[in-house]
Amino acid sequence: MSRKRLDRVHFDSPAYRRFDTAPTRTKHMKDRIRDAIDQQREAYTALLQEWVQDPTLSGQESRYQHRIADLYRELGLDTDLWEIDIASLKHNPLFHCQRESLAGSPNVVGTWKGTGGGRSLILNGHVDVVPEGDHAQWHQPPYSGEIIDGCLYGRGVTDMKGGNLSAYVAVATLKTLGVRLKGDVILQSVIEEEAGGAGTLAALERGYTADAALLPEPSEQKIFPRQQGSRWFRLKVMGVKAHGGTRYEGVSALEKSVAVIAAIQALEAQRNADLNDPLYEGVPIPLPINLGRIEGGDWPSSVPDEITLEGRIGVGPGETVETAEQALVSAMAALAEQDDWFADHPVEVEFYGACWQPGGIDLDSPLVTQLCNAFERVHGRMPERQASPWGTDGGLLSQYGVPALVFGPGITRLAHFPNEHIRLDDIFDVAEIMALTLIDWCELAD
Amino acid sequence: MSRKRLDRVHFDSPAYRRFDTAPTRTKHMKDRIRDAIDQQREAYTALLQEWVQDPTLSGQESRYQHRIADLYRELGLDTDLWEIDIASLKHNPLFHCQRESLAGSPNVVGTWKGTGGGRSLILNGHVDVVPEGDHAQWHQPPYSGEIIDGCLYGRGVTDMKGGNLSAYVAVATLKTLGVRLKGDVILQSVIEEEAGGAGTLAALERGYTADAALLPEPSEQKIFPRQQGSRWFRLKVMGVKAHGGTRYEGVSALEKSVAVIAAIQALEAQRNADLNDPLYEGVPIPLPINLGRIEGGDWPSSVPDEITLEGRIGVGPGETVETAEQALVSAMAALAEQDDWFADHPVEVEFYGACWQPGGIDLDSPLVTQLCNAFERVHGRMPERQASPWGTDGGLLSQYGVPALVFGPGITRLAHFPNEHIRLDDIFDVAEIMALTLIDWCELAD
Repeated sequence: MSRKRLDRVHFDSPAYRRFDTAPTRTKHMKDRIRDAIDQQREAYTALLQEWVQDPTLSGQESRYQHRIADLYRELGLDTDLWEIDIASLKHNPLFHCQRESLAGSPNVVGTWKGTGGGRSLILNGHVDVVPEGDHAQWHQPPYSGEIIDGCLYGRGVTDMKGGNLSAYVAVATLKTLGVRLKGDVILQSVIEEEAGGAGTLAALERGYTADAALLPEPSEQKIFPRQQGSRWFRLKVMGVKAHGGTRYEGVSALEKSVAVIAAIQALEAQRNADLNDPLYEGVPIPLPINLGRIEGGDWPSSVPDEITLEGRIGVGPGETVETAEQALVSAMAALAEQDDWFADHPVEVEFYGACWQPGGIDLDSPLVTQLCNAFERVHGRMPERQASPWGTDGGLLSQYGVPALVFGPGITRLAHFPNEHIRLDDIFDVAEIMALTLIDWCELAD
Repeated sequence: MSRKRLDRVHFDSPAYRRFDTAPTRTKHMKDRIRDAIDQQREAYTALLQEWVQDPTLSGQESRYQHRIADLYRELGLDTDLWEIDIASLKHNPLFHCQRESLAGSPNVVGTWKGTGGGRSLILNGHVDVVPEGDHAQWHQPPYSGEIIDGCLYGRGVTDMKGGNLSAYVAVATLKTLGVRLKGDVILQSVIEEEAGGAGTLAALERGYTADAALLPEPSEQKIFPRQQGSRWFRLKVMGVKAHGGTRYEGVSALEKSVAVIAAIQALEAQRNADLNDPLYEGVPIPLPINLGRIEGGDWPSSVPDEITLEGRIGVGPGETVETAEQALVSAMAALAEQDDWFADHPVEVEFYGACWQPGGIDLDSPLVTQLCNAFERVHGRMPERQASPWGTDGGLLSQYGVPALVFGPGITRLAHFPNEHIRLDDIFDVAEIMALTLIDWCELAD
């Protein structure tokens, strides 16, 4: 396993400049690809409905994955469905998973072997969906797969079964058209992305690597050559209990938490001030530290003696998870300088639960250029390029030396939210762009 | 039912001056009282152990109360044990209780009828104890009744079975000595003080009133002629959910809560600056507003869109619960002036759960003078006089026109805490002081 640190962004990279020299050899191919997609559009849409109607919550992926394996086999891919032995991953420093066992939650990989001599590409998508939340906030049942005004609704359709369909359609279309590529295309249907990436880690450990990876996560067709990582943390702030009527005899952990919240805000401001990456241009807070949960105290008329805060710290594409962790630990330790209380009762910092590695690809990689080209040929304009505000399994791939970029049809703000949906047109546009990119990256065999 | 507003403190009251003219007619009586208490000390101590070993948590008072009724009857008191019909109290604005029914939780009142023409006194004590909490923090089982170094240990012994024993011993001793009083002495063993006073309210509605009341709550033998009331409240602070990686697209209810906490602190400072009562001299925060619980958010990497804060606001002896409530409501409404967010998303203020009325007695009441006198004769010094930092059922009694003061043997800081205990000497000192006070207040019949 190699853990290579990503190079800093090259500001003179060609990917930052508009380029006009779209390759011409796939020109006639574009129309054939579009026609082939359009002919099968109804069948593909029905397939997505079927996928969405299967609630692949963590631990409930088996039926779905067997169905995916069948689809891969029907395409003629070398298909590998396997159960993941959690024991073999437990000592890997990149392993983050709350489950005790992954039995019954297989991974599936389908390899379209190339004729040789071309670059290989992983198309990685996760099958796990987050819980649907409060059903009352959904206008239709969460797993309906209903289509309204060109949008398909359901938990997981934006994050990321719609993107998975794009990848499937891209490969299916090229196969239908009799295309042969020099490089391998590796379709991956992995589990557990939402909880730290155990599925992708297992695929990497099984030996599935490539010259690059593309993850059709919900980027709204923006290209994310850099992906922010993130790390969950838990802070415990201490106080001294007392009766509320004599609260001056105690120390309120809640009042102390106000100082902790301010220190978190100051740390966030400082980390973002230090950042200098044009991919974050216009982003209000490139590397957010989010405090997502708070809980403490047990009685209205008692002084609370312990407050727990839980959050996530963004990990910049140019740093490691460990660097971000250390910054948080230092900020909490520095509280002692402004308040003696924290010298005697330091904030306990724990890193727990999920962890997403930062990831990315060199901006001057041909994959970035080719993807931008293909996008322009489909949409008539250049795509937006940004650093993603959240982590994906692209970070794990990058850690194993597989440069990764994110580009998908889903709607970012709907991921994990009620009434999640996706525009069907976007799925098929992305499939077309992916197919064109595969031809350029892996190269036609003849 | 009369709801009379207490007079403001009289700074020229005789109770503020040291007085040297202790009555002499009970002089020979003092030694007889002490001797009688000392002779029965072992039996009384065993009785307290028995009381403490009966865990009279809310809803589990029946056996205990029947035992109390038997003790009252053995003393020759007119004994009234009754089940409280909650329906008859529900529409009383002073009724605060979380229980659906009070069946199986009787009140007991024992009246020692006077010969007539004297002032009556209620000795009010509650039997309910708060839960024992984490057993690991207790050095002995919570209901052991164990005696170590002159202290008796157990949940409820300070709050307030030790005080109840003082009242019982005071009456039992006078009866033993053949004393006859002109005024009635009314011993009350009530339920539900810890949750808002439904037991005392039921006793008042049953017709038990008197010229004054003494509550042996844990004051460490300080005299509390004023008792602070308190009201529980719940605040809901709103935000807008978003993914933590794009937290700038949401509004953190936690960040908004920081402003709410500051507003609560400012309100507390202002209310205490307005206060001008020598009984609060030296008290760092006479009328605290305590934020005791906080909870909100459901995911480390989501922006929290709702935070709940729960607390208690102290109600000054000179104000009403409604005034304090209104002050809190106004402070929350005023947040809109400093942040437009609160104009569109006002903090929801709810008053719920427990409520203790403020209470007290005129400082120049003879009861205060007589109690101070009796204290001085036992201890050779004047007692401390303060306003209590917490509510008692004395507030309800005051609302019904029964002036109430608090004076008891328990240790304030141990109430509701692990390893709750009481000094046995203090219980019997308070019993002696109470007996002397009864003689002065109710007057000897001959």
